[in-house]
Amino acid sequence: MSITDRGVVEYIGAHADDFLADLRAWLAIPSISGDPAAAADVARSAWWLGGALRDAGFPTVEVWETPGLPAVFAEWPSADPDAPTVLVYGHHDVQPAALADGWSTPPFEPTDIGDRLYARGAADDKGQVLFHLLGVRAHLAATGRTTPAVNLKLIVEGEEESGSPHLAALLRERRDRLACDVVVVSDTGMWAADTPSTCTGMRGLAEVQIDFHGPSADIHSGSFGGAVPNPATALARLIAALHDEGGHVAIPGFHSGVGELTEYERESFAKLPFDESVWLGNAKSGAAAGEAGYTTLERVWARPTAEVNGIWGGYIGPGRKTIVPTSAHAKVSFRLVDRQDPEEIERVVRAWVSERVPAGIRCELDFGTGVRPCLTPLDHPALQAVVRAMGRAFDTEILYTREGGSGPEADLQDVLRAPVVFLGVSLPDDGWHSIDEKVEKPLLLKGAEAAAYLWEELAASRRGAAPGKDDR
Amino acid sequence: MSITDRGVVEYIGAHADDFLADLRAWLAIPSISGDPAAAADVARSAWWLGGALRDAGFPTVEVWETPGLPAVFAEWPSADPDAPTVLVYGHHDVQPAALADGWSTPPFEPTDIGDRLYARGAADDKGQVLFHLLGVRAHLAATGRTTPAVNLKLIVEGEEESGSPHLAALLRERRDRLACDVVVVSDTGMWAADTPSTCTGMRGLAEVQIDFHGPSADIHSGSFGGAVPNPATALARLIAALHDEGGHVAIPGFHSGVGELTEYERESFAKLPFDESVWLGNAKSGAAAGEAGYTTLERVWARPTAEVNGIWGGYIGPGRKTIVPTSAHAKVSFRLVDRQDPEEIERVVRAWVSERVPAGIRCELDFGTGVRPCLTPLDHPALQAVVRAMGRAFDTEILYTREGGSGPEADLQDVLRAPVVFLGVSLPDDGWHSIDEKVEKPLLLKGAEAAAYLWEELAASRRGAAPGKDDR
Ligand SMILES: [Zn+2]
Ligand SMILES: [Zn+2]
Repeated sequence: MSITDRGVVEYIGAHADDFLADLRAWLAIPSISGDPAAAADVARSAWWLGGALRDAGFPTVEVWETPGLPAVFAEWPSADPDAPTVLVYGHHDVQPAALADGWSTPPFEPTDIGDRLYARGAADDKGQVLFHLLGVRAHLAATGRTTPAVNLKLIVEGEEESGSPHLAALLRERRDRLACDVVVVSDTGMWAADTPSTCTGMRGLAEVQIDFHGPSADIHSGSFGGAVPNPATALARLIAALHDEGGHVAIPGFHSGVGELTEYERESFAKLPFDESVWLGNAKSGAAAGEAGYTTLERVWARPTAEVNGIWGGYIGPGRKTIVPTSAHAKVSFRLVDRQDPEEIERVVRAWVSERVPAGIRCELDFGTGVRPCLTPLDHPALQAVVRAMGRAFDTEILYTREGGSGPEADLQDVLRAPVVFLGVSLPDDGWHSIDEKVEKPLLLKGAEAAAYLWEELAASRRGAAPGKDDR
Repeated sequence: MSITDRGVVEYIGAHADDFLADLRAWLAIPSISGDPAAAADVARSAWWLGGALRDAGFPTVEVWETPGLPAVFAEWPSADPDAPTVLVYGHHDVQPAALADGWSTPPFEPTDIGDRLYARGAADDKGQVLFHLLGVRAHLAATGRTTPAVNLKLIVEGEEESGSPHLAALLRERRDRLACDVVVVSDTGMWAADTPSTCTGMRGLAEVQIDFHGPSADIHSGSFGGAVPNPATALARLIAALHDEGGHVAIPGFHSGVGELTEYERESFAKLPFDESVWLGNAKSGAAAGEAGYTTLERVWARPTAEVNGIWGGYIGPGRKTIVPTSAHAKVSFRLVDRQDPEEIERVVRAWVSERVPAGIRCELDFGTGVRPCLTPLDHPALQAVVRAMGRAFDTEILYTREGGSGPEADLQDVLRAPVVFLGVSLPDDGWHSIDEKVEKPLLLKGAEAAAYLWEELAASRRGAAPGKDDR
């Protein structure tokens, strides 16, 4: 271990108790963005964080109001003239939680049990925001610097658990203040405690509601059945045509922008100790299924999908009603990867559906706002800096994962035109959005350690050298 | 015109006013079987009919209680030792109706406007039951008989508009009393006032609810989408596979018992003055569609179908929810023809579905009680007797129709093991189950006239001669 690394570890060890005490205080604030009655708590959470950032030494700290709930911005410029600029993203709001939901301990009374700290927001995302404050102090203490090796910015929003409705507008409005060379997202996790990893991309999203209108009212299936188009049958045929026999999405033009996984990427996924029966248990499903030629992880991380989220039409009450229904409806969402573009998806889906609407059926399509996928190439210098920083903290190989879901990360990437990398230390069983959310305290400290190294690594990668490797 | 026919016409002309006065009195009783509050009115209707049958001369009249609403039975044996036995079927209950629904006149205050009598039940079915009382009296008066030429029985149920829930049990229980050589159903109509016709068959029905169970709860389509079976997609594929490219039901074994239409039957359908644009207006549909190789009438009358009556699963509220739903459901009904058997349909559908349930999906099928199709061959002597009787009344060619729906007629056919023929004079615009129900009074009298001839014709057809033809 290098002198710097020893300094970081010692600093973190010496300040761990204070860090955890601060975290408990923050976790006690029930900053539930989804509960209008908790708006004051979300604001209190923002101001608590602002104070903590000030205490940590950030020279600029601001609470940014939005039409919804407030975000916190902080900035600590580097004295180095050619230092890269880094923006850390996280959120200070939390999912709803109540003891009555089945929690073992009160969700807003942080409770230590062994190495674990139980509280709503412990992992998602307060613990992972706060480790950056400890990390940057350890970085300064161990290197003897008075300013970070990077121009360090943080944006910690207050509406992530409500779908970040005002984030994109805020990013656009404050684009100058938020300008950066790379975004570091600390709102994710690792594969396992003994398998540290970093996320390299998230899927995008396009959503559409399909309305098929047939007869102008429900009609009697005895009198008319078999001689007029049935909108439910027609819609079922459309949905059945979404995929070909191999489970591939069959819409022409849909795959524009989808890159095939490289051998290296497939091998890196395959290195993960994946147990399909455990995964199926989490998926509450009896079988894996999907595109031929891809593993389960490839299917959820690197392949685009078309899923029916809901379908309805005709008589759905108890008993029977022999009608040809007047209409049928489906909500369909598409997960997108690589350079797929939600607007282009809307275009190809509209064209494809319009060719498939049978005579006598009127079709309406209502697309939601899409989310672009984000993906950072494995050889990107910023991603490699994350891998080196985590490697120094965990002293083992850092593997690559992706996220199948879609989030505000795409807004960061698109509005700020910066690559997104992920530094997160949460575990799959940390109970995000569920009961008994917890965080492993030793991992949080590892997160602080990796953050402490990351600013060095990012500055060095810009200079074309990797200090961690050199020193080790 | 023969002497008998002149006698029938004169008798009916002389008694038309009394007949219509009786009908108005009966129509004033709101015998709505679907309204529990109207149970006393349904009973009153039964007793009113019983009294009218007594007045008409039926020696045996009984009100038969059921677990629901009462039916009326009447019997008038023939003195002829080899007379065939005929059972007339109709119903004395009516659909709900209220002025507030948009009626132009109070539905239970019968109102004469020109040749029309407006009231709920005028056509469906009180008018068409009551013409039999006038008909049999005219038959006796014109032939000088004191008993009918057939052993005449009537069963007039009180729950037809509620799905005849107790009819099959009643038929089974009273099978001996109801034993007959032929059933005459007077609860249908004709093609048009200038195109008299008789129905020769009705489609049967098999119904199933299909439940596809996937993940044990809704799961996140980001985390899992594309890698587990989606029950809504799987159900859509099943429904899409119900039909082949030509619109034919694609379930192996489904067509067992389906006869192809003969050239004569197709020609007889083609004789009907069919206007597809008018039909589409009634179907509230923008286009005709169905099995390749069949006309619209053939599709609704003589071809089996598979229709989705309802479909649902996943998130169907406003907005979006990116889930793989835990389950998806469909109510599917099959219309059956010829000798298709609902129990056999259940067997072949179960086999077909079970081969199509993807791994990871659990399927449940819940079949309702089926209805067998009924079809009387065009050359059946009883059907030809109806055609001759109607021909004498209308003095024109009687064409053949069918009914696409399914009704208690199948119970009559199956339990009593007798052919079913149809004598009805209602028109398509008579407003069955709708507002402003009416009947054309001259057609009701034609119905009485045809009924008067029918007993002669049926007796003659048993003896191998057709008196109507001989006399004319
Ligand atoms: Zn989060
Ligand atoms: Zn009826």
